[in-house]
Amino acid sequence: MHTSKIKVIEPKKIKWLVEKTSNEWLQQAIANPLEVLIDHAHCERKAAGAAVQLMFRYLCEPGLAEVLSPLAREELEHFELVMKLIISRGRYLEALPAPPYGALLTKKIRKEEPFRMLDSFLVSGLIEARSHERMSLLAKESPDIDLRNLFGSLLASEARHFGIYWTLALERFNREEVCSRLNVLAKAESEILSKLHPQPRMHS
Amino acid sequence: MHTSKIKVIEPKKIKWLVEKTSNEWLQQAIANPLEVLIDHAHCERKAAGAAVQLMFRYLCEPGLAEVLSPLAREELEHFELVMKLIISRGRYLEALPAPPYGALLTKKIRKEEPFRMLDSFLVSGLIEARSHERMSLLAKESPDIDLRNLFGSLLASEARHFGIYWTLALERFNREEVCSRLNVLAKAESEILSKLHPQPRMHS
Repeated sequence: MHTSKIKVIEPKKIKWLVEKTSNEWLQQAIANPLEVLIDHAHCERKAAGAAVQLMFRYLCEPGLAEVLSPLAREELEHFELVMKLIISRGRYLEALPAPPYGALLTKKIRKEEPFRMLDSFLVSGLIEARSHERMSLLAKESPDIDLRNLFGSLLASEARHFGIYWTLALERFNREEVCSRLNVLAKAESEILSKLHPQPRMHS
Repeated sequence: MHTSKIKVIEPKKIKWLVEKTSNEWLQQAIANPLEVLIDHAHCERKAAGAAVQLMFRYLCEPGLAEVLSPLAREELEHFELVMKLIISRGRYLEALPAPPYGALLTKKIRKEEPFRMLDSFLVSGLIEARSHERMSLLAKESPDIDLRNLFGSLLASEARHFGIYWTLALERFNREEVCSRLNVLAKAESEILSKLHPQPRMHS
């Protein structure tokens, strides 16, 4: 409910992603819509969990919980939407072996504060940016109309989410530091993806 | 968004609480409205965290995430409302030493499944029931009109929450087992509260 009030600073002009998603990934995702959906449900719940965890870690930091709590609610709402489509197709959530993307990226977060906070914002933003890029591809290219509609309907808020993390970083750190660190992490993100075996997952 | 669809089985006819809250607690809470508010914000965020955690633990259990995800969203919404009132009074979230109520009650959860699941539902329900009882007292007795209005506005959904946990238990375990275990845990809950020093906390 507060997200609309957040002044989001031109997130689309920021170069979050160093490398674009390959056509190979897209074809595999298109060929496995249900697996991608189930994996995406997991991504939404994990994104909600990460926002809640971040909010709990920096509980007394003014301006953080006001933003992260509505963001977590929105991720949960998306989780419910994705789950609804999965259920409508006669399936349910299933344990899917996750690619090591999230774990490898999280390892790049520095341990000492305040760098840990900055890196946490940027890693969360990068994951949102990659989800956004891949959801855009599926919203455009998937032959499955339900998937196109679902991902199409989630795109705007996904874009807002990485804008939120960008703004949280910029409100607390100087622009030069934020951009330089984003640069390092964005390179790492693309490098991690380049070494993963392509699988029908949002982040493989 | 799905909560309205949940068939809630007469939660109000169930004897959740063995002992009523003392007048001593009420007077202390009334005398410390801001401390109670800050503590209550923590309770809402913890309740959201607990619902998310439960949902993650039993992710492939049909009918659970559909209920716990909207419940977690509602707890976060309440958290934001309480925080808004705290901020409007010139304060923010603060680290408050929590009474050992939640930790002691959680210790009563049996380790082996499926008892762990049943006990988790009942302990969450008991905490909701106690919050509901105390919020009702404050909504009626506090001289602070903002507190009366806030707690009054949250009461209906708090009552629904313990109804949700009750229903989750009853859908998966036989009624006799649920009632008998609730009996044990409810006695433990009142006993824990009877030994805590009265403090201006929701669960002291």
